[in-house]
Amino acid sequence: MLILMKADSTENQRKTVCEKIEKLGFRPHPIPGEHSMAIGITGNDGPLEEREFMSLEGVIKCIPVTVPYKLAGKDFKPKGTEVKVGPVTFGEGHFVIIGGPCSVESEEQTIRIAKAVKKAGAQVLRGGAFKPRTSPYSFQGLGLEGLKILKKASAETGLPVISEAIDFESLDAVSEYADIIQIGARNMQNFALLQKVGKLQRPVVLKRGISATLEEWLSSAEYIMQNGNEKVILCERGIRSYDKYTRNLLDLSAVPAIKNLSHLPIIVDPSHGTGRKELITPMSKGALAVGAHGIMVEVHDRPKEALSDGHQALLPHEFEALASSVEKISSLLVP
Amino acid sequence: MLILMKADSTENQRKTVCEKIEKLGFRPHPIPGEHSMAIGITGNDGPLEEREFMSLEGVIKCIPVTVPYKLAGKDFKPKGTEVKVGPVTFGEGHFVIIGGPCSVESEEQTIRIAKAVKKAGAQVLRGGAFKPRTSPYSFQGLGLEGLKILKKASAETGLPVISEAIDFESLDAVSEYADIIQIGARNMQNFALLQKVGKLQRPVVLKRGISATLEEWLSSAEYIMQNGNEKVILCERGIRSYDKYTRNLLDLSAVPAIKNLSHLPIIVDPSHGTGRKELITPMSKGALAVGAHGIMVEVHDRPKEALSDGHQALLPHEFEALASSVEKISSLLVP
Amino acid sequence: MLILMKADSTENQRKTVCEKIEKLGFRPHPIPGEHSMAIGITGNDGPLEEREFMSLEGVIKCIPVTVPYKLAGKDFKPKGTEVKVGPVTFGEGHFVIIGGPCSVESEEQTIRIAKAVKKAGAQVLRGGAFKPRTSPYSFQGLGLEGLKILKKASAETGLPVISEAIDFESLDAVSEYADIIQIGARNMQNFALLQKVGKLQRPVVLKRGISATLEEWLSSAEYIMQNGNEKVILCERGIRSYDKYTRNLLDLSAVPAIKNLSHLPIIVDPSHGTGRKELITPMSKGALAVGAHGIMVEVHDRPKEALSDGHQALLPHEFEALASSVEKISSLLVP
Amino acid sequence: MLILMKADSTENQRKTVCEKIEKLGFRPHPIPGEHSMAIGITGNDGPLEEREFMSLEGVIKCIPVTVPYKLAGKDFKPKGTEVKVGPVTFGEGHFVIIGGPCSVESEEQTIRIAKAVKKAGAQVLRGGAFKPRTSPYSFQGLGLEGLKILKKASAETGLPVISEAIDFESLDAVSEYADIIQIGARNMQNFALLQKVGKLQRPVVLKRGISATLEEWLSSAEYIMQNGNEKVILCERGIRSYDKYTRNLLDLSAVPAIKNLSHLPIIVDPSHGTGRKELITPMSKGALAVGAHGIMVEVHDRPKEALSDGHQALLPHEFEALASSVEKISSLLVP
Repeated sequence: MLILMKADSTENQRKTVCEKIEKLGFRPHPIPGEHSMAIGITGNDGPLEEREFMSLEGVIKCIPVTVPYKLAGKDFKPKGTEVKVGPVTFGEGHFVIIGGPCSVESEEQTIRIAKAVKKAGAQVLRGGAFKPRTSPYSFQGLGLEGLKILKKASAETGLPVISEAIDFESLDAVSEYADIIQIGARNMQNFALLQKVGKLQRPVVLKRGISATLEEWLSSAEYIMQNGNEKVILCERGIRSYDKYTRNLLDLSAVPAIKNLSHLPIIVDPSHGTGRKELITPMSKGALAVGAHGIMVEVHDRPKEALSDGHQALLPHEFEALASSVEKISSLLVP
Repeated sequence: MLILMKADSTENQRKTVCEKIEKLGFRPHPIPGEHSMAIGITGNDGPLEEREFMSLEGVIKCIPVTVPYKLAGKDFKPKGTEVKVGPVTFGEGHFVIIGGPCSVESEEQTIRIAKAVKKAGAQVLRGGAFKPRTSPYSFQGLGLEGLKILKKASAETGLPVISEAIDFESLDAVSEYADIIQIGARNMQNFALLQKVGKLQRPVVLKRGISATLEEWLSSAEYIMQNGNEKVILCERGIRSYDKYTRNLLDLSAVPAIKNLSHLPIIVDPSHGTGRKELITPMSKGALAVGAHGIMVEVHDRPKEALSDGHQALLPHEFEALASSVEKISSLLVP
Repeated sequence: MLILMKADSTENQRKTVCEKIEKLGFRPHPIPGEHSMAIGITGNDGPLEEREFMSLEGVIKCIPVTVPYKLAGKDFKPKGTEVKVGPVTFGEGHFVIIGGPCSVESEEQTIRIAKAVKKAGAQVLRGGAFKPRTSPYSFQGLGLEGLKILKKASAETGLPVISEAIDFESLDAVSEYADIIQIGARNMQNFALLQKVGKLQRPVVLKRGISATLEEWLSSAEYIMQNGNEKVILCERGIRSYDKYTRNLLDLSAVPAIKNLSHLPIIVDPSHGTGRKELITPMSKGALAVGAHGIMVEVHDRPKEALSDGHQALLPHEFEALASSVEKISSLLVP
Repeated sequence: MLILMKADSTENQRKTVCEKIEKLGFRPHPIPGEHSMAIGITGNDGPLEEREFMSLEGVIKCIPVTVPYKLAGKDFKPKGTEVKVGPVTFGEGHFVIIGGPCSVESEEQTIRIAKAVKKAGAQVLRGGAFKPRTSPYSFQGLGLEGLKILKKASAETGLPVISEAIDFESLDAVSEYADIIQIGARNMQNFALLQKVGKLQRPVVLKRGISATLEEWLSSAEYIMQNGNEKVILCERGIRSYDKYTRNLLDLSAVPAIKNLSHLPIIVDPSHGTGRKELITPMSKGALAVGAHGIMVEVHDRPKEALSDGHQALLPHEFEALASSVEKISSLLVP
């Protein structure tokens, strides 16, 4: 950290800053200038609370030099992490296609769609059993029953399954029945849940919060990893924006940016990320081209009957066309 | 809900929409136009999933007419709610000043500051025992120990106390030791936590999420109220913005806007809302002037030693000046 | 400026940075650290292009220490500026109420409303003659004809008038007929227009751009001041946000923030800032309480007939009530 | 447009709304419902001012059904427009690579880089002569001199050139010396400038404003087209966001979204859009994959000496690698 002092800060004010640094067990490094003055701090292992110095007199601002995460960072582990789920690998050189309905609605619907997405080329089946909904009056999912159905669909098709956990209770169930645990955008900073996920050895897809910075996102991954679970897959799913043409603003630049900052695999959810069916295929191709390690796409064969988000689901044959064009491009991009 | 159909939608497409509406148990009302066509829906008690109709052919868009909350809404209860905590009332005609340190750091520190804020005019004492922190390496609070200290400070000063619960475990503790439970911005959509809070009879301060719309915020209040706890106080604490001059963008317009939409009391947190000490006093006066029912302000007598957020805390004498000027204005504004 | 170098940057890389600094005519100040290394720059009068150093090898980031404006800054002139327009003063200790219709629609309408706002307590009359409209199909204003009407209304009431200039042509007309030139949000970075305004000696109200940072706003003021016109009044009018409940997000925190950074007077436009009639009065009181030097409010006596923005206009008696309550609070706040 | 009336609106209030509609020359269509009431409007050619009805008593909200642009819209012209510049075509089935320095700095520098980008595969040369800068103290470009240099570089390489016009004066010069006129983000709503550009017959690249919605962007294109110039190419260049990791947030989803709304070609500027050199190549590939018709990339062979934005420029060999990998993918994507 670097602390900038005012040009007219007094000798005493600088001394106070240096003493606080020393008291914290670190070393101060005064750096004289003409119009200002800076004090560097060294000897600290983790990040310092930059704001703590702001209240000292004479201080203009504090500039962090280190980041608030470590295990998730590329400095710590330059080589890309691979997360394996049965025969599927998330990581560099792979592009995983996840497909399935937004919600598990019935055994018949789920198995039917599971077979369709498998045939179309999906490697993982998605399906929501516990649904976090903005309004308490919206459909909240089939819960445990939904997970059992997913398990059957997995047995029928051989596809590993991913489903969302929204609290401790659902986490117990999801970690029993699903192969990958999903933590949704609303829970990205539910630290108690992250810590509990961290104690499991199940792969986790951690979605980006609705307005999370890249740094906050990686810090949330850190909460999981620090508790022992390093099988974290990040998922960009759109952030909040001022333009309501799309449901969210799918930030594809987050993919190469995260790959510069972290060794964790990153996938993209174009369904929630755009909320518009016609944008899913182009944005999926875009995800591949910017370097994502996979996509998660909602598929429904009878969208008019869907209990949630039918409007943003692809039909099986549209999904199949997407999967096949992605495969073609993929052969060019992934060396 | 109103469903807009394309100008060139077919008779059949309109019929399909009407049939879906009837199947859901409601009544369709076709409304012919020259360049477009609309279908109204009546007979529904709660909100419909507007997006569910988007996948039907011929549909342009769906316009919700009802809101996704009910108990929290002004239609349901036009008269403003009063939430009482001992001798203190949150609601129209009252302006409650809450003060105290960001974190409970020690018994000595907490009681010292509690006495100071009481002397300065505070009616409620704040203090964080469980701290949700972006990075797992930041100070996480004293936990249960901190709550016990707060309880002592309350006994010494007679001030009711407010403290944040971040998960089920801390909620049990907070509801035992504190008079008001705070749910922070990161947990505004932690629905399991909201539901559990809803089963308690303790007053709750529900902070606005970092990018929450007013509708989402009131829907979260609904999760609490629907479970039986109607003692909800909303707290505007700043939203995310592109300008990093302030830590967050304190949205004072949310106060009169919420008062138009809801009967719940609303207070303002200018400390987190701005993150800059010099803005706290003007924004507190502003909060009062726009119609807020109170403010929550961080106070520390030794900010340089504070373990968190010392930079945005007022000194006791600054807090006293604020409280006294607020009181003066208040006499003019509150009839 | 401070340049942070990577921990493993080479001696040669640091040398290259220092040489570039010297070549630009400044002095480099190397500052050694344990995990990183910084180089300070002194001797520069204005701001440096911080990004210019980013391409040099070994550089992590550049931290500006000085701001990109000077004449508009408080360092340059600590005492608040007063801008006088006839009998009216914009500046500390004054609170100017500007009222009038969004658009000048006819002589009869304008003079009628001008008399009403004067009676209600307004000190300046507003009225748009040249209207910048998002769509070319919207009403674009009466132009020169409108300005002549405003001038008559000014003569009838004795109120100075403010009207918007949107390009060179309209600027010539506005500066001839109006007492204050308004530069709207869309033109905040129309530098040619700012420079031309800078060559006039007419007071200017410079509205904040729809997503402008405080620094960009003050830099735009600098374009005017640097050309010789120091009579700049800033106007907060709401910024773009994700919540569409209000038309814009009126950022009252910008008022005390600007007062910390600049000596220029600052007023608030709650009409465009909220776009909702019921929020205008509370937000006007809020503007006063946070320290603004005035408000600009749209008033129309027949809003149903208004050619633009009738929905966000106060009726004359509502405006009168606002003016009178503002006066009461004002007596308490302004020492 | 549809006007929603309150459930308890009176017969008289509805009548007033209908009368206002008729007075404007349109036809009202009352649509009864159980909990609310709507009134449709037909017979209007262009968009109505939705807000004009908001002030009428009993009105809840107005829902626009038509968009505020027409010539730029796909309804008006379903087939994609092709804009030709010498041998280069912007439009479906083509992917144009534009490269060159941020600023024209000298004849030697410009011709050197022009030759390099041509060799690397660029089809158009970019170079800024008039630079809109946030601060009046930043380098403002070589002006007319710069345009003459660009013209020479064009003659030497055979590449058509694009350069930005920032006001009337520079527009005269740019339209004389350059093949394509660029209107930058800050001027997207400088309507006088758009109208003047509309009277020329020169192709225009219209960049998206820093916080422009898609609708506002297309409305600005409409200002140009309505004046007679239909050779408009849109350019996504990043919007403002809360995360400062990138300079702007490059919104690739705008590409397929615009292609759904408009027939105009759209290109992407990954240099300003990210402000980070390491993101330019992946985001360029992404632009191609989501369906853009081209990219505009800053290239500099001596970035350390660049007078502006050197940090976000590719080196010629990096640009060559980008161009060649884009060509490979292109062969797969463009049928």
